[in-house]
Amino acid sequence: MDFLSDNAAGVHPAVLAALAQAAPACADAYDADPWSRRLKAIVSDLFGRPARVFPVPTGTAANALALAACVPPWGGVVAHTHAHVERDEAGALGFFGHGASLLLVPGAHGKLAIPELDAALARRRADVHQVQPAALTLTNATEAGTTYAPDEVRALARWGHARGLRVHLDGARLANAIVHHGARPADMVAEVDLLSLGCVKTGGMTAEAVVVFAPDLAATLPVRRKRAGLMPSKGRLMAAQILGLLESGAWLETARRANAGAQALADALPAKRRLHPVEANMVFAHLEAHEKAALRAAGFRFHDWEVDGPAAARFVVRWDQEDSAIEALARRFRALP
Amino acid sequence: MDFLSDNAAGVHPAVLAALAQAAPACADAYDADPWSRRLKAIVSDLFGRPARVFPVPTGTAANALALAACVPPWGGVVAHTHAHVERDEAGALGFFGHGASLLLVPGAHGKLAIPELDAALARRRADVHQVQPAALTLTNATEAGTTYAPDEVRALARWGHARGLRVHLDGARLANAIVHHGARPADMVAEVDLLSLGCVKTGGMTAEAVVVFAPDLAATLPVRRKRAGLMPSKGRLMAAQILGLLESGAWLETARRANAGAQALADALPAKRRLHPVEANMVFAHLEAHEKAALRAAGFRFHDWEVDGPAAARFVVRWDQEDSAIEALARRFRALP
Amino acid sequence: MDFLSDNAAGVHPAVLAALAQAAPACADAYDADPWSRRLKAIVSDLFGRPARVFPVPTGTAANALALAACVPPWGGVVAHTHAHVERDEAGALGFFGHGASLLLVPGAHGKLAIPELDAALARRRADVHQVQPAALTLTNATEAGTTYAPDEVRALARWGHARGLRVHLDGARLANAIVHHGARPADMVAEVDLLSLGCVKTGGMTAEAVVVFAPDLAATLPVRRKRAGLMPSKGRLMAAQILGLLESGAWLETARRANAGAQALADALPAKRRLHPVEANMVFAHLEAHEKAALRAAGFRFHDWEVDGPAAARFVVRWDQEDSAIEALARRFRALP
Amino acid sequence: MDFLSDNAAGVHPAVLAALAQAAPACADAYDADPWSRRLKAIVSDLFGRPARVFPVPTGTAANALALAACVPPWGGVVAHTHAHVERDEAGALGFFGHGASLLLVPGAHGKLAIPELDAALARRRADVHQVQPAALTLTNATEAGTTYAPDEVRALARWGHARGLRVHLDGARLANAIVHHGARPADMVAEVDLLSLGCVKTGGMTAEAVVVFAPDLAATLPVRRKRAGLMPSKGRLMAAQILGLLESGAWLETARRANAGAQALADALPAKRRLHPVEANMVFAHLEAHEKAALRAAGFRFHDWEVDGPAAARFVVRWDQEDSAIEALARRFRALP
Repeated sequence: MDFLSDNAAGVHPAVLAALAQAAPACADAYDADPWSRRLKAIVSDLFGRPARVFPVPTGTAANALALAACVPPWGGVVAHTHAHVERDEAGALGFFGHGASLLLVPGAHGKLAIPELDAALARRRADVHQVQPAALTLTNATEAGTTYAPDEVRALARWGHARGLRVHLDGARLANAIVHHGARPADMVAEVDLLSLGCVKTGGMTAEAVVVFAPDLAATLPVRRKRAGLMPSKGRLMAAQILGLLESGAWLETARRANAGAQALADALPAKRRLHPVEANMVFAHLEAHEKAALRAAGFRFHDWEVDGPAAARFVVRWDQEDSAIEALARRFRALP
Repeated sequence: MDFLSDNAAGVHPAVLAALAQAAPACADAYDADPWSRRLKAIVSDLFGRPARVFPVPTGTAANALALAACVPPWGGVVAHTHAHVERDEAGALGFFGHGASLLLVPGAHGKLAIPELDAALARRRADVHQVQPAALTLTNATEAGTTYAPDEVRALARWGHARGLRVHLDGARLANAIVHHGARPADMVAEVDLLSLGCVKTGGMTAEAVVVFAPDLAATLPVRRKRAGLMPSKGRLMAAQILGLLESGAWLETARRANAGAQALADALPAKRRLHPVEANMVFAHLEAHEKAALRAAGFRFHDWEVDGPAAARFVVRWDQEDSAIEALARRFRALP
Repeated sequence: MDFLSDNAAGVHPAVLAALAQAAPACADAYDADPWSRRLKAIVSDLFGRPARVFPVPTGTAANALALAACVPPWGGVVAHTHAHVERDEAGALGFFGHGASLLLVPGAHGKLAIPELDAALARRRADVHQVQPAALTLTNATEAGTTYAPDEVRALARWGHARGLRVHLDGARLANAIVHHGARPADMVAEVDLLSLGCVKTGGMTAEAVVVFAPDLAATLPVRRKRAGLMPSKGRLMAAQILGLLESGAWLETARRANAGAQALADALPAKRRLHPVEANMVFAHLEAHEKAALRAAGFRFHDWEVDGPAAARFVVRWDQEDSAIEALARRFRALP
Repeated sequence: MDFLSDNAAGVHPAVLAALAQAAPACADAYDADPWSRRLKAIVSDLFGRPARVFPVPTGTAANALALAACVPPWGGVVAHTHAHVERDEAGALGFFGHGASLLLVPGAHGKLAIPELDAALARRRADVHQVQPAALTLTNATEAGTTYAPDEVRALARWGHARGLRVHLDGARLANAIVHHGARPADMVAEVDLLSLGCVKTGGMTAEAVVVFAPDLAATLPVRRKRAGLMPSKGRLMAAQILGLLESGAWLETARRANAGAQALADALPAKRRLHPVEANMVFAHLEAHEKAALRAAGFRFHDWEVDGPAAARFVVRWDQEDSAIEALARRFRALP
């Protein structure tokens, strides 16, 4: 009963079907193929704005490539202290960005808020000696399983733009946030400059995408992507993976199912045990060491979550999680004191 | 009738079959899955030595990641003047290698030879002011469609090792070279430290691999790969693509078929028109501008090949090239004066 | 009456005298000269251990070069939240270290302490996805004008070594710390691996130095320094600047004088106004906006100090500060409510 | 009798005098001082165009900083095969330029010529897969001791600009070229975008300068310089070194004297022994191994010069070379068969 991560889930059949359709063709290499063109159209339509779309194999590549296009090597990216770019990407921004830095700002439940952002910037100077903020990155859903509503994204984006920052959204679990808010995708990214479009965690295979809404930011992306070894010759097979999810509607269906599973777990967990509101497909629980050990002995797999302290545990519900596993874990949660 | 490149060919059915088998599973992320383990075993067996295998989406990623593990940022990689790493990877070595340089050496028909290598090194000094060679990269089959025999690879590897260089083989078309020489794969890489194992051009999809034979070179590869956004969470789907090719035997079958097509074209081309020996799946022809134009008007697609001068053209035969296209082009070649 | 910084002070006559002596010679370039050799001997003697010495023009170069030798591009340097490497070096570690990161840890009065260091490390995981700490950097005297005693440096160095970290000391104001503690220089760096030896702020001109005690860390420094354009051909003139300060004793005399001036100011400042203990040549004062304005109107120059809040001001006493300026400022301080 | 290099010469008294004048002051740090402002005015006047001036400690720093401002990390700098940036700067362009490459072009006697430049560019493609040329760097006087006349510089600069390249001049020995042509400094850099202004080899100490004529290129230089640890707090002492040379006229006087010495040697050397025209302060001679050995046994020091083959030797005349040494070497030259 594996609640380690949604990143290990199965691949949705719609993805395989799309691959099977694109595989036999001999199409022009390097994104000059019909699938890549269709992806551009579909994604532009989905988000209600003309977009450039650059498929890449991982979320780390998507985030780092996107942010590198926003900041010079001597610039900084304002990010949450617990953001994926800080904790789980091995310093990829420093690599893609040639030494660009993260400027970390804390915030409750994994969310950035304007008072803390203002305070952080007030402690900085605008001169040649200090790393200058050049971008703001938000994550929706956050690493704490919470979400920003469309209005919150808009307010943060405006805050960033007013200070000359480009605004990036890490949407590794964007589908989960969309589903939670019942929002239109376009409203979730309304004033965002560029997006890491997450697919892998909602049924995808090995394709995520950088989606660029701000035309100027797309200028250097093709060569950055090529030079990073992220531009496959048979690009149609990357595009097809994403088309399979989006055109079939699977992208949101899988998120809806995973969110519902997490909600069932949250309902089962005593309120005082819940470390964060459950708004996506993750539950963070306060569990003592012996309680963790008992769960593991019973066959449940999950991660300790260091940033929330030694008694924190993270349970992620996959889109293809067995109902029986969710119910078994929920029973355990209900039995907690 | 498309002779532009083998990099745009169809995906072999064996790859799709392997994907379909691995897709539904929920397996541990980040290469801790059975497919990744099997890939390591299969590749070690194929090349007759214990190997670490790191799937990556492109040949550019494979080459740059492999070479970055061999040279410090201030080091140099000895390469042929027309190597793919020089001409078609957008300076990826400089990116992955943090400024590491290529030290280019010319050689007839795309091949490096020891006299020219010796001469190039004799013009360099060993001091702190000059980029010091730290690796040698060979390409087999070469960018000129020629090949090194096992003994030639061995001799060059020994030359490099004797000078303290790590030895890398760009095997984007290794299968084509193996088939040409009727050699065992193990003999083709006998004294090589690490290999870019090409799959995409012989029926693969979006997975190539860095294969590391020298254990010390594998030490930094996992973190380099992660940081470059090249380590997919669902790694089993990368491994499966390669397993599909290797376990089915498709990897060599496709190469054999492509080589035969190129040989048919070579036989049809007047000898004085042939720019390089045809030993793999590429034919380089001397064609005047009006001859190129006539071919293109007749529906043939191919690349001009600048490094061989303005009258050079490259024709690549794909594994899934239609016989009719090959025959049509051969007819044209036979008709040339 | 300029209390902006010690980095703008005059050059001590001993430095000019040493330059005049070394200038006319034609000596071997690139540190193969007698002055560079003498510097190595003098510094080794001063710190009681065999050392390699690499003069560089700035403290930023010294810190970044030293730290880059300690951490791989994917590694992290544990540093105080307000350290110079974080706030005043424009992300130089990211540049010299090819994307290496700072891992910031807070601490009272600019000092790192083991409980906070332990807590910070407890929130991190040791895996390929997270930046791994590889070095610890201390600053003595700190950016808050406080100091570590020899025993404190030793304890922190041992803490770092026990966790596999290399230990670096930013000694931009090391002389001030030595003088404050009345310690032997050797005791101030007893278990430190490498040191940025500050000279500019204590009467130097345009030469600081990286001093390497751990022999393995010196291996890559020559080529790193050359490649960064930091290895002057007439290296004897860099060495001579430092020799002038050290051999004359001016290095500590200047620090003693500056510390005494700061102490006089601290004594004059009402205790409740003092933001940090005054242990070197800097005074941090709580001053309301109108109080700052009044001082500035009276001709005093000083920096606001954002990290200590909007009411913070920093006054630095230079080695060549006029007594009259110190006394005038002290009078102002005494008059504060 | 040392003919190794002009980079080890003495420092001209005018430099020391300027330092002595600037040293005692307490002036605003980081180039906000009167000397730095005067340097900007003097250099603008010298070259007849408004210029920004950024002193740096070495020619390597000047070249790499200047070129990094001209090319993106994925761009290329067209340079002579034997240029200093290729052979003597440890790959500094790759470091400062985040992986930017040199695109090497051969040319007789160390000089680039338009036919070879055209041929080199004709072999390249303009696409995302290939490093795109973004700058052209010339060296005057060249590494072969030859020079470009003002008209040649102008023609090459126009060639570059017509192809969208920024044009940089490595002027490590610009004074020698100016003196040789009897040209006005302004004419020597008339259509150049930015210049590495050499001072060290003509009597300077540890200051060269990046001189930027194209205003857009100056935008990122301050932060690039700071981040590279090349922006000294006491910047007035860097400016003063250069002012000392330029304002006193020593900059050209020293070059005139050194050129004359080299001419005397050239006149003494049998014509068939001369590898390159002698137009600056360097003589390249064909000498057999036993002839080199005999000279060395007689106390002459000089470098072998690998790029011109095993029988090549380089003799550099310093501005402060003793007449007796020149005469002694000339006698030896005259005695050669």
